[in-house]
Amino acid sequence: MTRMVNSPADFVKEALEGFASAQTRAVAVTGAGMARATRCPAGQVAVISGGGSGHFPAFAGWVGPGFLHGAVCGNIFSSPSEAQILAVSRAADNGGGILFAPINYQGDILHFGAAAEVLRSEGIDVRMRAVTDDIVSGTSEQHLQRRGIAGAFIVHKIAGAAAEEGLSLDEVERVFVKANAATRSFGVAFGACTLPGADDPLFVVPEGRMAVGLGIHGEPGIDEVDVTTADSATDILMDGLFAERAPAAGQRVAVLVNGLGGTKYDELAVVYRRVAQRLVAVGMTPVTPVVGELVTSLDMEGFSVTLTYLDDELERLWLAPADIVSFSRGQVAPGELRTAPVAGLGESVGEIPPASEASQALAQALAGIAGKVAAAMAAAEKLLGDIDAVAGDGDHGVGMNKGAGAAAVAAQTAAEKGAGLGTTLSAAGHAWSDIAGGTSGALWGAGLVAAGQSLGDEQDLSAAALAAAATAYRDTVLERGGASVGEKTMVDALVPFVDTLLAELAAGDVSGAWKAAAAAANAAAEQTAEYGATRGRAKLHGDRSVGTPDPGAKSFAMVVGAV
Amino acid sequence: MTRMVNSPADFVKEALEGFASAQTRAVAVTGAGMARATRCPAGQVAVISGGGSGHFPAFAGWVGPGFLHGAVCGNIFSSPSEAQILAVSRAADNGGGILFAPINYQGDILHFGAAAEVLRSEGIDVRMRAVTDDIVSGTSEQHLQRRGIAGAFIVHKIAGAAAEEGLSLDEVERVFVKANAATRSFGVAFGACTLPGADDPLFVVPEGRMAVGLGIHGEPGIDEVDVTTADSATDILMDGLFAERAPAAGQRVAVLVNGLGGTKYDELAVVYRRVAQRLVAVGMTPVTPVVGELVTSLDMEGFSVTLTYLDDELERLWLAPADIVSFSRGQVAPGELRTAPVAGLGESVGEIPPASEASQALAQALAGIAGKVAAAMAAAEKLLGDIDAVAGDGDHGVGMNKGAGAAAVAAQTAAEKGAGLGTTLSAAGHAWSDIAGGTSGALWGAGLVAAGQSLGDEQDLSAAALAAAATAYRDTVLERGGASVGEKTMVDALVPFVDTLLAELAAGDVSGAWKAAAAAANAAAEQTAEYGATRGRAKLHGDRSVGTPDPGAKSFAMVVGAV
Repeated sequence: MTRMVNSPADFVKEALEGFASAQTRAVAVTGAGMARATRCPAGQVAVISGGGSGHFPAFAGWVGPGFLHGAVCGNIFSSPSEAQILAVSRAADNGGGILFAPINYQGDILHFGAAAEVLRSEGIDVRMRAVTDDIVSGTSEQHLQRRGIAGAFIVHKIAGAAAEEGLSLDEVERVFVKANAATRSFGVAFGACTLPGADDPLFVVPEGRMAVGLGIHGEPGIDEVDVTTADSATDILMDGLFAERAPAAGQRVAVLVNGLGGTKYDELAVVYRRVAQRLVAVGMTPVTPVVGELVTSLDMEGFSVTLTYLDDELERLWLAPADIVSFSRGQVAPGELRTAPVAGLGESVGEIPPASEASQALAQALAGIAGKVAAAMAAAEKLLGDIDAVAGDGDHGVGMNKGAGAAAVAAQTAAEKGAGLGTTLSAAGHAWSDIAGGTSGALWGAGLVAAGQSLGDEQDLSAAALAAAATAYRDTVLERGGASVGEKTMVDALVPFVDTLLAELAAGDVSGAWKAAAAAANAAAEQTAEYGATRGRAKLHGDRSVGTPDPGAKSFAMVVGAV
Repeated sequence: MTRMVNSPADFVKEALEGFASAQTRAVAVTGAGMARATRCPAGQVAVISGGGSGHFPAFAGWVGPGFLHGAVCGNIFSSPSEAQILAVSRAADNGGGILFAPINYQGDILHFGAAAEVLRSEGIDVRMRAVTDDIVSGTSEQHLQRRGIAGAFIVHKIAGAAAEEGLSLDEVERVFVKANAATRSFGVAFGACTLPGADDPLFVVPEGRMAVGLGIHGEPGIDEVDVTTADSATDILMDGLFAERAPAAGQRVAVLVNGLGGTKYDELAVVYRRVAQRLVAVGMTPVTPVVGELVTSLDMEGFSVTLTYLDDELERLWLAPADIVSFSRGQVAPGELRTAPVAGLGESVGEIPPASEASQALAQALAGIAGKVAAAMAAAEKLLGDIDAVAGDGDHGVGMNKGAGAAAVAAQTAAEKGAGLGTTLSAAGHAWSDIAGGTSGALWGAGLVAAGQSLGDEQDLSAAALAAAATAYRDTVLERGGASVGEKTMVDALVPFVDTLLAELAAGDVSGAWKAAAAAANAAAEQTAEYGATRGRAKLHGDRSVGTPDPGAKSFAMVVGAV
């Protein structure tokens, strides 16, 4: 299981700090992922992948000469954010266009796709192609809809080599498409990993049994059979791969036998021995196979076999030099180290729009308020975590603390640079969603950004302006989150807060209106503890959450109470 | 646990076959271990280590430019034999003397010591120095009596670099002694591995507890404490290392954070982050640290931290280029691949002899035929096992499948390297006997080698040449096996096969002759089912084998039928 953890919320961040400080091939893009430590020739296509963390050396360890130019690192098994993808892209871009090469999971496709749109709007040519090698997750007719697993190692290696050769973006994309079309993987698992901070594995495969076709996160497989011998287990995979594409005498193939973390090297070697026998028996030739842990799932027990049917071009690129942590081949050209620091998440200096003096003064005041909110959330972390643990996964306190803390730093930075109130509040919102993660982080971020845009950087804080901003916040959260009052969410406190604020603001007393609204939010949050078992999440989870307030409603009330 | 096992008895052998066929840096010394795939300059000191298997990449994966010259691979956690050490030494020796560099365990010291005596008696200068880095296993005054653990990675890397620089044996030994004196490790474990074939781990650490100072095989530690945070666990190790040798501002250190197999990469990175913080806090500088799985214990959960206090010489050697599986650094000089096969246990060294073009073409054809035979034996494994189970131990199908598979791989390899027909057939024979085991494996191997020697690498495949080769095969099997026709063995099919082949070849039709001979073999094999209980093995085994053909005769007929 995963034991060496300080705080589960900080696990990925701390691991990336460790990887970055120990690695020589890649440098950290703070809060976002990795970029190459060496400069690339101007105009070289940048191949960028990424996804959830927990798969090391994929993807943070795949950055280096002859392989990836950048890797975006989300939370454990969770898609990285659009902001993270943009930060890595800006650090990795060489002016030759970018190939986004995620492995095929919906969240990754959505976020990489959104980031691609942003970059294209800035004039950068960005293509996106996904790895779809897992033969279990769809029919062969729909190969491009399958999910991606360990075969990404071969496809990315080949695409990285194509970029290193100086091929154009069109050509690198063509090579990637060809490599993916030639690549098939099939895996088995004996047991799942435990997430950092968890006491039990994600799922259990019965002892002595083997789940056939299980994905790298434990997605359902196609069969469950007895564990017998290494050879018979391997034969199941080889038979499946040969059924997908008939073996062809004389065909040369790249081979990867990949361990998920808990199935170790000697076992993988025993498996490879059988793979080689099966290939040779049908007249096929393995070309410099790779046997090891290249795409893990923390300590998950299991392995997969990947075959890539090579033509001359793919073989040349498969054999080309590469140098990443845990894998190297041939002689890479000596590279010059970067001298300029890499901009991390939220560190790329945006333009600060002009602002009125009054708005700049309000921004300074907001920075002070954001600091108070951050202090309140730090103090409330344990309380919020405890009430979230009753019905949820217990991470709400951590998320609010991280989000409010990041927002305070961002607000301070923006205000110091002369930003107005709207830009400062938007900066706080961006930082909150980038750092906090999770659904509440996304909602707080989007709401604050909408409120900031409503306020702008010129006007004073009139009652009308505050009412419009609060309305923008509420409407954004309602639209993004999709929840209604009574479902025991943040919305149960938010809507009474805004209702009260608007009513009281009509009387013209901004400070008094806020206090009354905050009191209404707190009363409504406490009331969520009394909802019966027929409502919202309480219904889904039986009556486990009855008797405790909703953590999102409670934390909302605490934030507005701290202002 | 360790699950991907065919037979526990064959696990190490099969794993080494897999490692060897997947690796590009090292070649197998059959039955003994690994030697470099590249030639070394004449007179270069050879640094050889080894020990029990189950620690991959130590030691089989540490062979390559800038690192070890040879690795001897014993059974799981068991010392290799003197014969294995001698075989690896003869394959790795470059004429510059040998440094034996085991890690300090009694069995390894005894066997390496005995092998050193043998080599010295042959005029080879051999030194032996052990790695003794584990601070828990003895007092600092008795550093050289301590056991060796993961610090071997750093000490071997440095000694390998010294040899690569061309230093003399005296100098390489001096550098090794200095590196070992500068190296200290300290480890913890959360649980043990399971041995291949076992259902339970070697020992159990109570859940939530951490054994401090446990060795890599589960030797007793010094304490057991609660698992708390990654930082506090790391602090225990750093405090121990600093108590052993006081931290010194300005000191540069090589660092290894080594995972034992079940403590994964993200966790090791979180640990390294703390190690780096502790080093920086006392003014010490980590120099290109290594964080990963370099010395494992199958799937054991735990990790260690190693520090090597560097001087200028040690730092230069630590930073020197190296290229082994799972670890590389810098640019190694391009190496010329060996062309001579490596002598295995009990084999003699020989170059691939020159061959005529016709013979090389025949070798290519043989490689294809060997693939067909391997496929036929894979398909026949169950049938042969079943008929062998009537009178024997039921392993004949497995043996034939393994032997034919290994022979096919060997034939393919030899043919690709330009070997002629005779050398290719001999290579197939050696592989068959090395891999298949058992009596039939030994007979098939010896027979094929004799046939290969008869054919040579120059002549075309005339009727006379084929007749001579078949005769050589038959006579070798008769002589080695000691069986006669009628005793219900392989010989019952072999002799009629050769008789028919020789008679038909006199007519000059090679292909027709083979077909007729194969038919005769098959008829004779089937006839063995009719032998009465008074004959041969049937007599020994009562009447259990009456009614089924002899598996050896049957498999012989199937092999010649598949050609």
